[in-house]
Amino acid sequence: MIPLLIRWRLVQAAKTFQNWLNMPFETKDSREKVLDILERGTATELREFIHDLHNADLAVVLESLPPEDRHRIWNEVAQSDMGDVLAEVSDGVRESLIRATDPRIFVRSVQSLDIDDIVEMVPDLSPDLAAELMMAVDEERRKDLDTLLSYEEDTAGRLMDVDTVTVRERVPVGTVMRYLRMRGELPEHTDKLYVVNRKGELRGAIQIRNLVTSSLDDLVSDHMNENTRTFNAKIPVEEVAAAFQRYDLGSAPVVDHSGRLLGRITIDDVVDVIQDSAERTFLAHAGLDEEEDLFAPVLYTVKRRALWLGVNLITAVIASIVIGQFEETIEKLVALAVLMPIIASMGGNAGTQTLTNVIRGMGIGTISPANAMDVLKKELLVGGLNGMVWAVVVALISMFWYQNLGLALIVAIAMLANIIVSVASGVGLPILLNKLKIDPALAGGVALTTITDVVGFLAILGFAALVLV
Amino acid sequence: MIPLLIRWRLVQAAKTFQNWLNMPFETKDSREKVLDILERGTATELREFIHDLHNADLAVVLESLPPEDRHRIWNEVAQSDMGDVLAEVSDGVRESLIRATDPRIFVRSVQSLDIDDIVEMVPDLSPDLAAELMMAVDEERRKDLDTLLSYEEDTAGRLMDVDTVTVRERVPVGTVMRYLRMRGELPEHTDKLYVVNRKGELRGAIQIRNLVTSSLDDLVSDHMNENTRTFNAKIPVEEVAAAFQRYDLGSAPVVDHSGRLLGRITIDDVVDVIQDSAERTFLAHAGLDEEEDLFAPVLYTVKRRALWLGVNLITAVIASIVIGQFEETIEKLVALAVLMPIIASMGGNAGTQTLTNVIRGMGIGTISPANAMDVLKKELLVGGLNGMVWAVVVALISMFWYQNLGLALIVAIAMLANIIVSVASGVGLPILLNKLKIDPALAGGVALTTITDVVGFLAILGFAALVLV
Repeated sequence: MIPLLIRWRLVQAAKTFQNWLNMPFETKDSREKVLDILERGTATELREFIHDLHNADLAVVLESLPPEDRHRIWNEVAQSDMGDVLAEVSDGVRESLIRATDPRIFVRSVQSLDIDDIVEMVPDLSPDLAAELMMAVDEERRKDLDTLLSYEEDTAGRLMDVDTVTVRERVPVGTVMRYLRMRGELPEHTDKLYVVNRKGELRGAIQIRNLVTSSLDDLVSDHMNENTRTFNAKIPVEEVAAAFQRYDLGSAPVVDHSGRLLGRITIDDVVDVIQDSAERTFLAHAGLDEEEDLFAPVLYTVKRRALWLGVNLITAVIASIVIGQFEETIEKLVALAVLMPIIASMGGNAGTQTLTNVIRGMGIGTISPANAMDVLKKELLVGGLNGMVWAVVVALISMFWYQNLGLALIVAIAMLANIIVSVASGVGLPILLNKLKIDPALAGGVALTTITDVVGFLAILGFAALVLV
Repeated sequence: MIPLLIRWRLVQAAKTFQNWLNMPFETKDSREKVLDILERGTATELREFIHDLHNADLAVVLESLPPEDRHRIWNEVAQSDMGDVLAEVSDGVRESLIRATDPRIFVRSVQSLDIDDIVEMVPDLSPDLAAELMMAVDEERRKDLDTLLSYEEDTAGRLMDVDTVTVRERVPVGTVMRYLRMRGELPEHTDKLYVVNRKGELRGAIQIRNLVTSSLDDLVSDHMNENTRTFNAKIPVEEVAAAFQRYDLGSAPVVDHSGRLLGRITIDDVVDVIQDSAERTFLAHAGLDEEEDLFAPVLYTVKRRALWLGVNLITAVIASIVIGQFEETIEKLVALAVLMPIIASMGGNAGTQTLTNVIRGMGIGTISPANAMDVLKKELLVGGLNGMVWAVVVALISMFWYQNLGLALIVAIAMLANIIVSVASGVGLPILLNKLKIDPALAGGVALTTITDVVGFLAILGFAALVLV
């Protein structure tokens, strides 16, 4: 009966869900074809097939294969493609591939990558390998590399591109156009030229799409936007991403404390930040980090997951200790042992709904300490009403089951009490965790269910001990 | 002791977490200032302050205030700003604002918005209001509006911009440049011109940043990319978003079945799709839809959340029925009632870790039926090892607690059995749900904990009934 009930609500969600049996792009076929060639084909066939694959697709194939197959395929990747593929795969898989590669070949295949791809790899390399790689990058680019690496991870400075095209404001558009034709190809994702003064301080920006429609005699200053949103290089990338989304930016300049132009951030970098942070939140509720290699060594995975299970064991034991205080009561009325998980679980679910809404609201900025009381008031009303509804339902179920009015009343009161406490915790916990600088998406769920288990068990068993037994 | 243990692991997560006490941008201050002016200031002050605010910031302020304050502020928003603000707020809040607005004023303030903003609003309007709005849009734009609305929601056709700039391939760059200057301003987010033939079929695309660096005598065909990735208008937006991310696209043409150019999708639209779908996944695990108005009427919220709680009640009752079969066993050994939640909860947590990893893998395409067996094998190994570790720990705890070796052994076996079943379900459930076209992110969690509760209770109580009592 559950599937039916769920289905009713899920039809809409299901409709938009990316049907994975009709997986998009060529990945599904690619993997099967690769496996096919691995089994039956020749090395040449494999090499040719891999070479024709888009690097992003090859990355997914490598990520989705167990180590032996993964390395057999990696051995056939052309040295000229290796760097690009390494730039595409997830951190965990990249490590496993680098370990399987001759250091000299690794350095040679990566040294000519885009600077931002190299910047992303360096922190995860062994100090020796990182040093070797840095040495291999040609001098001019090494300076840029040093600049970017001087900013902390997850800051605007680390994320930016240093190759900006700059112009002066008192120059005619026609001159700029001639300059661009002389200069040749513009850096990827260039949608604006930046206007700087003699000291390199940012004065504004001019969109290339405005440049091409402007009269050649106009000055740059006639068409430049002086109110371009700028980001200090030391700002966290999450803030940059939020601003890009909120203000619909395509690219934005990065400046130092004195307003000098350092580089630019483009929306394609921001997309990765958004995706990573969404993934982190999704994985966090199961106590997982981002980017685990699907086929990481078993012992490694066991260790990674054990701590979270340990934390959960402690919270489960705490709840059990509460139950343990009422052994006598349960012995006299075993029905309590049967019904108590219902009370705990309904509280947990009601609280999780509130918690989830509050975490989301804090993320997008609609909930702050200033209006937390308003939110709490509303959630308590919702919880109170829902609590009453479910108290009646659960009381009826217990009445039907055990024909014991006293028990039914206790169950009802416990249910109402637990839902109200759960909902209040759903509002209070993320605010508290945030003040303690703990990510509510990671710790909120465990903390909440600990509370709802303890309060749920305490309520039903405690009331029963007081009144019934 | 929990906070300490959690903290140890959380320090890294916390470090990157957007510190909400130092909320980014002006929103926090804006809300406080608005409330301040509401309380102490004059209507003129309020109006001026609101007018100076960025529409995106005003939208967040409106979303974060309870209905009375929200409507008092809405009344002071200039008619010329109303449309832009409505385009920014979330669906739920938009509805509440539209209800509070005179229909004629609504139509007048919205009719001149960008077509894609209007397209987003129309499906949620009452048929009358939608018709009035459509009539008010000027004729040329109404044609575009009709085109876009003829595609289903959440398809590439609905998401696209119809205002593309097209050129022919045998034309010199210099001619194109003169044409652009004559044409005047290009549509927002234009980074490419599309090359079409006489029938309107797409031949390729030329980046504006390449155009400006090309020699004026070159032909368009010398610089155009013929392998531009195109999207059929009927493709789901999720697929478009995945392709934009995977292949790092900035914009892409949308075509019909015969390859005729219909419009273009730009990455800023895709960012919203990515964000929405991440949010949907995050909210789904608590059975919530996207975009609930924080201050929606209480009864409305109660109804929205009740169904999910109802589904959860059914699963909780199923678990309780299992316990109910063993009342006699529990009566004889109450320790079982104390320890059984530990078995169920550890299974639930181990299973959730696997489930979360598998859902993520399916989302990014690294897990498919083809390699599901490899994943299952690995997860079973991890689960088996973790199960053994925690079986020993829990057995020791019960031994210490009850000095009953038989009980400790049963607890250990039940723990191991439940963790293995949970991990297997964590792999199998999302694959099964997907085949049933049910979103695993929405239903996976409930389905899994139902299994882990039932198996957990059944294992500990069943073994005890067989062996001990």
